[in-house]
Amino acid sequence: MYSYFDNAATTPVDKDVLKAMLPYFTSSFGNPSSLYSISLESKKAIDNSRNKISQFLNASKDEIIFTSGGTESDNLALRGSISKQKNHIITSSIEHPAVLSTCKDLEKSGYFVTYLKVDSEGFIDLNQLENSITEKTALVSIMHANNEIGTIEPIEEIGPICRKNNILFHTDAVQSFGKIPIDVKKMNIDLLSASSHKIYGPKGIGLLYVRKGVMLNPIITGGGQEFGIRSGTENVPGIVGFGKAVELASKNMNKENKKLLSLRNRLISFFMKIPHTRLNGPMKKRLPNNINVCFDGVEGEALVMLLDNERIFASTGSACSTRNLNPSHVLKAIGLKPEDSHGSLRLSLGNSNTTKDIEKLEKTLPIIVEKLRRMNPLYEK
Amino acid sequence: MYSYFDNAATTPVDKDVLKAMLPYFTSSFGNPSSLYSISLESKKAIDNSRNKISQFLNASKDEIIFTSGGTESDNLALRGSISKQKNHIITSSIEHPAVLSTCKDLEKSGYFVTYLKVDSEGFIDLNQLENSITEKTALVSIMHANNEIGTIEPIEEIGPICRKNNILFHTDAVQSFGKIPIDVKKMNIDLLSASSHKIYGPKGIGLLYVRKGVMLNPIITGGGQEFGIRSGTENVPGIVGFGKAVELASKNMNKENKKLLSLRNRLISFFMKIPHTRLNGPMKKRLPNNINVCFDGVEGEALVMLLDNERIFASTGSACSTRNLNPSHVLKAIGLKPEDSHGSLRLSLGNSNTTKDIEKLEKTLPIIVEKLRRMNPLYEK
Repeated sequence: MYSYFDNAATTPVDKDVLKAMLPYFTSSFGNPSSLYSISLESKKAIDNSRNKISQFLNASKDEIIFTSGGTESDNLALRGSISKQKNHIITSSIEHPAVLSTCKDLEKSGYFVTYLKVDSEGFIDLNQLENSITEKTALVSIMHANNEIGTIEPIEEIGPICRKNNILFHTDAVQSFGKIPIDVKKMNIDLLSASSHKIYGPKGIGLLYVRKGVMLNPIITGGGQEFGIRSGTENVPGIVGFGKAVELASKNMNKENKKLLSLRNRLISFFMKIPHTRLNGPMKKRLPNNINVCFDGVEGEALVMLLDNERIFASTGSACSTRNLNPSHVLKAIGLKPEDSHGSLRLSLGNSNTTKDIEKLEKTLPIIVEKLRRMNPLYEK
Repeated sequence: MYSYFDNAATTPVDKDVLKAMLPYFTSSFGNPSSLYSISLESKKAIDNSRNKISQFLNASKDEIIFTSGGTESDNLALRGSISKQKNHIITSSIEHPAVLSTCKDLEKSGYFVTYLKVDSEGFIDLNQLENSITEKTALVSIMHANNEIGTIEPIEEIGPICRKNNILFHTDAVQSFGKIPIDVKKMNIDLLSASSHKIYGPKGIGLLYVRKGVMLNPIITGGGQEFGIRSGTENVPGIVGFGKAVELASKNMNKENKKLLSLRNRLISFFMKIPHTRLNGPMKKRLPNNINVCFDGVEGEALVMLLDNERIFASTGSACSTRNLNPSHVLKAIGLKPEDSHGSLRLSLGNSNTTKDIEKLEKTLPIIVEKLRRMNPLYEK
């Protein structure tokens, strides 16, 4: 058996979710666009999922656009809302690569992007946001919760600023969706990205919430599925699985969060007793399942490898990008020196974690940290 | 039990395909971008699928880009290869909406598209193709086989024309992939779209073959997965299922095609004995599983509905677009009058079809056609 502490990277599919999906692979397999009865089963299943998910967000059914995942949703929100007339996006310097790389790509095509700074805990500055708005601003894209350090941004305060200035507000909620409450109406959100495989649903399916009245230019055109905003034969089993995962998340959120918070706080307290250890991200307004720590003199990659030897799976910085050795852009943005930002350990807890996992980690980690520090000639006690 | 004659719209997932996918939902669920051992299982599974599929196409492993499906692949090929300098695409008037709608969208953004005419059997004219090439032409996009009338275009003759003129050649092979042999090297193909759910694989996964050396601008940017061409956490179970489906298609193609050809030809002969019936598309160079017929005085929609009552599932024109009542653009292009192009029945055979299905159809269809003709005051015998 292993201890899995990388639930922000991905999660296993819940057994009830898989069970809900299975009929749509082999028996109710019809193309939802067809006219005959077996296809109506697929169409109904999609409607049912869309319904559940829209209720969960306090949205309407026709405001949910299914996509292939969070990355596509972010791309659709950004690429779909910018234009020659409105050619400016405001975002933060700690967004997920799905937003940041897309912004870089848009800059290459002649669009303009403002990257807001964040403070030492990862929070954006609402004054800087307001001061960055110009007549050309199409969109503000600020993540709900950061995938590396768990910071929950003040999105309920960003929405009204955008609304007042007639600017669209997009939030990448991939890490928060299904984990902390979201009400798109109350929060004045125009566009919201979410992903299924972070909440015990299948990979390859996500959504973009698109508030009624918001006009987006599609990035994938064709048969006109998903209200004309996202073409392509619908991934019916994926959509069904996503719907079931949301149903379970909705039911379990409160109870689950209590458990996660308690495990998280216990671990953070434990880590902070190890000398020369730094917690990245805030203690308040932090995702209930996120821990991100640096141990002075310890390389993150080495730490992850030695934990792997003990069948403890964790991540250094973000696992949502390809294997690269660049220092984390998030840790740089909150003020860490490059050498320190290589040394972070991210633990993201999930529903499989038990106190047994925590005990194993508490037993194993100090030994590994001690070992790696001994091997590092530059580390001074 | 029912008789399913709409395999060009979608197919059920093969039980061996589903079996191959299952472990990747719940046990080998790791994010392939992570570093620890459980994630390496996902990474290996993707490699393995990529390997199988590349061999099937006579391509290299790093030329296969997994996408969310055929529609996304078409969009990536078209949107990814056009630029301000090379702002012209040549395509045909009978492409799938994934290509045609994307061309229309690109025209709105100031790009130029030539739509080649087709003859009465749906074949493009290679002379017209050559004469349409300009210095600004970026891409020729001609489908391998038509989804409505089964016409197999002369793509092995298009490739060399494009190569000679230094133009990229894309083919939408969604309907032919896994059904008739494809060799991307021999056929001089630069870009090829394929989809999993048309060959007994899962929905939500497809591929774009991108010949080594071809530079594409991604339409979905982010973490840099799929060699930087298509970002987003990989749909691991989908990719595994697609690989297995290709493995089975490769193994069964010859035998399966013999069966399909025989059933298809039997049905076509049968239909042609019904008075005032027209076969759309050619008899030679036609997909082995495609039948498309018009019965004078019969509405396609009504026919499909009455067949549905008998648990026979078929389609009128294409089922790959949302439910609309426009006449088929393909039937219009091969010269049918709008009133006739409403009346077509498409049957696409698959591995579930038996002679029993055929017998049932032969018994049922003439009665329905006769009934609908009797109800039609405009129909004259």
